[in-house]
Amino acid sequence: MTEQKISGDVIAQENEKRAAAQAADYAALGDRLARNGVDIDTITTKVAEFAVAVPSWGVGTGGTRFARFPGAGEPRHIFDKLDDCSVIHQLTRATPTVSLHIPWDKADAKELKAKGDALGLGFDAMNSNTFSDAPGQAHSYKFGSLSHVDAATRAQAVEHNLECIEIGRALGSKALTVWIGDGSNFPGQSHFTRQFERYLASLAEIYKALPDDWRLFTEHKMYEPAFYSTVVQDWGTNYLIANTLGEKAYCLVDLGHHAPNTNIEMIVARLIQFGKLGGFHFNDSKYGDDDLDAGSVEPYRLFLVFNELVDAERRNAGGFHPAHMIDQSHNVTDPIESLISSANEIRRAYAQALLVDRSALDLYQDSNDALMATETLKRAYRTDVEPILAEARLRTGGAIDPVATYRASGYRARVASERPAIAGGSGGIV
Amino acid sequence: MTEQKISGDVIAQENEKRAAAQAADYAALGDRLARNGVDIDTITTKVAEFAVAVPSWGVGTGGTRFARFPGAGEPRHIFDKLDDCSVIHQLTRATPTVSLHIPWDKADAKELKAKGDALGLGFDAMNSNTFSDAPGQAHSYKFGSLSHVDAATRAQAVEHNLECIEIGRALGSKALTVWIGDGSNFPGQSHFTRQFERYLASLAEIYKALPDDWRLFTEHKMYEPAFYSTVVQDWGTNYLIANTLGEKAYCLVDLGHHAPNTNIEMIVARLIQFGKLGGFHFNDSKYGDDDLDAGSVEPYRLFLVFNELVDAERRNAGGFHPAHMIDQSHNVTDPIESLISSANEIRRAYAQALLVDRSALDLYQDSNDALMATETLKRAYRTDVEPILAEARLRTGGAIDPVATYRASGYRARVASERPAIAGGSGGIV
Amino acid sequence: MTEQKISGDVIAQENEKRAAAQAADYAALGDRLARNGVDIDTITTKVAEFAVAVPSWGVGTGGTRFARFPGAGEPRHIFDKLDDCSVIHQLTRATPTVSLHIPWDKADAKELKAKGDALGLGFDAMNSNTFSDAPGQAHSYKFGSLSHVDAATRAQAVEHNLECIEIGRALGSKALTVWIGDGSNFPGQSHFTRQFERYLASLAEIYKALPDDWRLFTEHKMYEPAFYSTVVQDWGTNYLIANTLGEKAYCLVDLGHHAPNTNIEMIVARLIQFGKLGGFHFNDSKYGDDDLDAGSVEPYRLFLVFNELVDAERRNAGGFHPAHMIDQSHNVTDPIESLISSANEIRRAYAQALLVDRSALDLYQDSNDALMATETLKRAYRTDVEPILAEARLRTGGAIDPVATYRASGYRARVASERPAIAGGSGGIV
Amino acid sequence: MTEQKISGDVIAQENEKRAAAQAADYAALGDRLARNGVDIDTITTKVAEFAVAVPSWGVGTGGTRFARFPGAGEPRHIFDKLDDCSVIHQLTRATPTVSLHIPWDKADAKELKAKGDALGLGFDAMNSNTFSDAPGQAHSYKFGSLSHVDAATRAQAVEHNLECIEIGRALGSKALTVWIGDGSNFPGQSHFTRQFERYLASLAEIYKALPDDWRLFTEHKMYEPAFYSTVVQDWGTNYLIANTLGEKAYCLVDLGHHAPNTNIEMIVARLIQFGKLGGFHFNDSKYGDDDLDAGSVEPYRLFLVFNELVDAERRNAGGFHPAHMIDQSHNVTDPIESLISSANEIRRAYAQALLVDRSALDLYQDSNDALMATETLKRAYRTDVEPILAEARLRTGGAIDPVATYRASGYRARVASERPAIAGGSGGIV
Repeated sequence: MTEQKISGDVIAQENEKRAAAQAADYAALGDRLARNGVDIDTITTKVAEFAVAVPSWGVGTGGTRFARFPGAGEPRHIFDKLDDCSVIHQLTRATPTVSLHIPWDKADAKELKAKGDALGLGFDAMNSNTFSDAPGQAHSYKFGSLSHVDAATRAQAVEHNLECIEIGRALGSKALTVWIGDGSNFPGQSHFTRQFERYLASLAEIYKALPDDWRLFTEHKMYEPAFYSTVVQDWGTNYLIANTLGEKAYCLVDLGHHAPNTNIEMIVARLIQFGKLGGFHFNDSKYGDDDLDAGSVEPYRLFLVFNELVDAERRNAGGFHPAHMIDQSHNVTDPIESLISSANEIRRAYAQALLVDRSALDLYQDSNDALMATETLKRAYRTDVEPILAEARLRTGGAIDPVATYRASGYRARVASERPAIAGGSGGIV
Repeated sequence: MTEQKISGDVIAQENEKRAAAQAADYAALGDRLARNGVDIDTITTKVAEFAVAVPSWGVGTGGTRFARFPGAGEPRHIFDKLDDCSVIHQLTRATPTVSLHIPWDKADAKELKAKGDALGLGFDAMNSNTFSDAPGQAHSYKFGSLSHVDAATRAQAVEHNLECIEIGRALGSKALTVWIGDGSNFPGQSHFTRQFERYLASLAEIYKALPDDWRLFTEHKMYEPAFYSTVVQDWGTNYLIANTLGEKAYCLVDLGHHAPNTNIEMIVARLIQFGKLGGFHFNDSKYGDDDLDAGSVEPYRLFLVFNELVDAERRNAGGFHPAHMIDQSHNVTDPIESLISSANEIRRAYAQALLVDRSALDLYQDSNDALMATETLKRAYRTDVEPILAEARLRTGGAIDPVATYRASGYRARVASERPAIAGGSGGIV
Repeated sequence: MTEQKISGDVIAQENEKRAAAQAADYAALGDRLARNGVDIDTITTKVAEFAVAVPSWGVGTGGTRFARFPGAGEPRHIFDKLDDCSVIHQLTRATPTVSLHIPWDKADAKELKAKGDALGLGFDAMNSNTFSDAPGQAHSYKFGSLSHVDAATRAQAVEHNLECIEIGRALGSKALTVWIGDGSNFPGQSHFTRQFERYLASLAEIYKALPDDWRLFTEHKMYEPAFYSTVVQDWGTNYLIANTLGEKAYCLVDLGHHAPNTNIEMIVARLIQFGKLGGFHFNDSKYGDDDLDAGSVEPYRLFLVFNELVDAERRNAGGFHPAHMIDQSHNVTDPIESLISSANEIRRAYAQALLVDRSALDLYQDSNDALMATETLKRAYRTDVEPILAEARLRTGGAIDPVATYRASGYRARVASERPAIAGGSGGIV
Repeated sequence: MTEQKISGDVIAQENEKRAAAQAADYAALGDRLARNGVDIDTITTKVAEFAVAVPSWGVGTGGTRFARFPGAGEPRHIFDKLDDCSVIHQLTRATPTVSLHIPWDKADAKELKAKGDALGLGFDAMNSNTFSDAPGQAHSYKFGSLSHVDAATRAQAVEHNLECIEIGRALGSKALTVWIGDGSNFPGQSHFTRQFERYLASLAEIYKALPDDWRLFTEHKMYEPAFYSTVVQDWGTNYLIANTLGEKAYCLVDLGHHAPNTNIEMIVARLIQFGKLGGFHFNDSKYGDDDLDAGSVEPYRLFLVFNELVDAERRNAGGFHPAHMIDQSHNVTDPIESLISSANEIRRAYAQALLVDRSALDLYQDSNDALMATETLKRAYRTDVEPILAEARLRTGGAIDPVATYRASGYRARVASERPAIAGGSGGIV
């Protein structure tokens, strides 16, 4: 029997208030889609099956190098975090798994597993951390980790990743995500080629230790925390890594890790074509790695990414089974609300992409009818699929309006009374 | 008698080693410049008079939201910081003033003044901080400070700025720099116009309290810590502020606070033309507000900025007396070395700009001879002015090679033995 | 009696096919909006009143410096262009005016006026052209026009603008739009300040000749055709111009003329606040001044711009009556179809912005409820307002589906048979 | 006996004027380098051996989509262009080869070869053109060429490339450069994967026809002329192409074809490491593909690229023998002067890179001494190597000051009297 952090009564009451409107909206949308030969329930079922992992670090208030402003009831440790994650899943039914970050979430694996089971949560990809120094660590990562000039430092970083795999095995995870901060702040600081050779050698050791049914995700990023060069700076380098390592190695795409103006959906298509798309860290960005809520700034871009994913699914593209994960920094919102909303936005983009009339699109593309091709995408995108998303939640026990229901539940006030307040403060690292 | 943190003997010894080469290089360059009608000593004198302020926060190791990796002998407080700043000035003779950040540098003003006097250091512009919460602060700046929707929060932020002015008066400072993090992370979070009206009203109160012989510098920045919109996002808004407030209000230009591809030297020219250039926060950047060492990534851009400054000087542009300050984050170097080197780079750009043959340039510009106009700039820029910079230091008691002399002095090891080691660690605010 | 380029029968037939679905969709949307207290007909009426000007040059196939690939039936001259423009208006009822470009559209003013009257088209802002040399022109604009170092060249450029005003007066236009290509390709080529002084002096002469009931729109652009610096490079410089000239001078915002990542809606808000928003050149862009179809790449950005406009309207912001114009380059579509579609997208953003619950938004903004504030915008944006747009067209005599109706009409084939084919070819100016 | 377009007397006279200064500067620099253990003559010899190809299209005045402003004496055809190219080589001794563009330079191959021989010029990589339609062409490239949906259009584009190879064989060329404009202007217009599959299939056909001793260079570009997506958009896709095709296929790097803020020198390093760097199209850019003169805007970036090249040379990196070509658009200068100056700038970056103390750099890199590592690069970069460049020219029969000598020669006036003037004019393709 799954432990419920939000009372079922609250959900029922809140749903009751909205049931009639939801039924009407769903019926109206169903009628309209039916006119175009689309069965709304088929879409709803697919949406209900679509899941995205929540990052454990996402339920705490994020910050910048300038400051962090905690909210009420900040989670104290991974067990609090799992409680918070379970709330998101309970209301959205979209986030059945949590992605852990080691050492931030380090705890007894058995206890973790038991907690997850109790809450009805599974464990997604494990994330290693060699971009900051853990207390007592023998070798500092100030000048790099997996690509460090010093062999002992690299060995320590490799070892940490192996430990992450071990923890993950105990928890039922099936993937390791490796993102590092290695790079340089000055021209000449690092020798690009020797640095990347060291990186590849370290990764090869990690890859060797990967269980057969696991996947290794490497994540590229243009800059930050390194500000002149970054070892895994773009998808080109990321592809070289995955290609060098072997068939269990895949590229992870974080939507905020690209150069300005980059056509991200095209990168997604290329990685699918060459069998190396591992999955996503969903979020949104306007300037850099802003880690804003998914779909909050450029919702059409999110749709265009999902357009590629649905297309690949339909084509049965080889080796295509991407992992979906959120990676955001919630600086000014209740993190639980942002994650509820983001899971919803991701499903929205998926639902819209499912509505694209792909036969018509094929014809327009093959006849160079650019206007009608793009209009075909736009028609799907313009559809207000909220009734479908709500229905998918409703039918699986979630909330028609999960944010309103969350607010009605008083969860935040409850945990705020249990968890000590944290003072804000300067990052001090301007 | 000024307190010397580096023994004069060390400087003398190190200079002695390099004296012959310096003399030869200076003579050779002097000959070459003379051939073009330029008197090297005139340039050297001007360079020796050129000063740039050091930021107190710059002598500590900086970091990112991901981590900070402290070095040995991190300064514990403003008095340690002033010691470090004095080393930079002793070796470069280019940084006679320090810019303080309140509350980070809060201390008894009399003690501060005495310490500065003892070290031969003055106090440059004061910097207020309403982008993070100080312990015990009544109202949080999570959702803004000078532009906050709540009047009490705005009043608190105004009050803090008034306090900065008071401290500055006691120290002999003549300017207040206001940079805020106010903005928003989501479309719709803030009403752009009402937010800016509140900002202007708060600034008007600060402006009213400004002593007659002070200047108010407002600093714009495109993004970070806010990631969808920033209240003072660019020079256009910054100009509106300065223009609205009055004649003591000026715009501060930080070289890393602009949109990608921005022509910064042109912004400098526009602000000069309209009498509103207050000064600079020097640094360099490749991606965003990277706060890299001045001139380390795009040295020609730094030169082009100084080309505008020297031109304005020559034209006696009205109201032109810009403040020069460094604002950098030293994440992977000894901050003292980076600041020595940066002060040097800034003087280098100034020296190169002084060498531009401006009569020739005028003629080329007026005859649309684009190639020779740009070549005129390049000829000045290509000149290796290091002998001039070294001579300017040497003649004023500094070091021919200040970084090597600093290393020879053993200063870092000495303070490392006096100041407790600090563990690195995760920013925890990813 | 207005001359109709598309037979009314075709429109009626095409509308008939779609009438039932349109009625159903409009009713369903009306029901849903009514539930939120919104009267759909009020929105429809406002949408029907919203007009946007079509650029005469937009009905010809555009190109790049690499090539241009003309389509069938390219307009030969302004009279053909007006025919094409009338088709757009006939089907959309959204584009009652045309914006002319001189000398491209030079013709006898009386004939032009008569042609416009016959087609039911008025004349919007006049556009001068001093970014290319007209045959037989005495002074070349190779090195600038209104800011040229040579007084005679500047005078010629001023004179051309005065002529544009004269033509416009005869046609009933009420505004002059000045966009120039002046700038430089090399650091040092131009003296920023002297160049801008010359520009301002030239503009002052044009401004002096402006009729009392006219407005002067100056348009900024970051780069292209100049690639190192541009005289009117951003809204900051544009504001300085408008502010220097006087109360009839306003800033024009082209959505594609900004630095990467720029928050354009915020610039719009600032210009409104300071009484200097003149209007828009609508289009979309992903990389630079791509001149793509409005709303085709970042539709949410277009909505956010309109969110500011509707907000200003509601606040009765002083001096707020922006001009709406399209400025696009149709390289791969039938230009008439792109303009039909773009007019529709612009009205779509307007309709969505009208649906924003502004009282709720105010409350969320004032309580720092970032999540619900942004959700309030999103709810309006997510509404599929196509039934409203179609209804607005239908009620004013336009087409429910204007592109399909245009295709059904055979207009393109008809003009292709009357207008000679043009060969494509290399721009030859790589 | 090579035909000389500039009289040897003029060169001798101009050199004579500058001989003493050059000797003095060369000696002084030699002394200084000797102090650091560097033999200046070794550097000079290497510089003298360094060559870069001139693009035939570069000697005509370039333009933008807005306008082109021809200069006096524009070359009428490839034979005029070769004359102009020979002037550049005669004065710089740095540009012994010319890169042709077909069909722009189409002519009888035997005549071409003879002309080249007479002028002492060889033929570098051949450039095909399927980004514009040639008169009489059966299938238009409006919607693509090598990746077009239509097989006949693709076949025509392949055929054109085969013809380029044939012409190149006759001329002694050893490489084909393929840059295409294929892409899309609207989301959905093209299916990314099918489009790229078609591209790869077309390239495979071209590759098959490549002579054994030839190389195939594919060139990526982020955008323009396509403004939503480009088939070969970045080095990641470019690498996939080269890797798929085979060992004669290489990636060409144009310095202006990248996203904003991209670290280009790192891409160069990656391509070298994976054996796929084919060569360069040198130029400079501030905003997009500005095609500005090499080193004119970011000279340090050019140096950093050459730093990688010299490092690879020293390491004997496998398969490393990059082609050096200029690709610029000379809109406001005499193209001959810009090409002279650019060849000089490219050699300058090479000379500076040769001066890097690589043993010291290795040590600094291996000890994480970021400050001294970057200073090691800067010291080399700061060296004013103009005396070396001038000496390299002088010793091989060129001019100490090639631009001044060119101006003294009266060449431009001479050809202006022989070649008819061309009127400027609007691109007409805004």
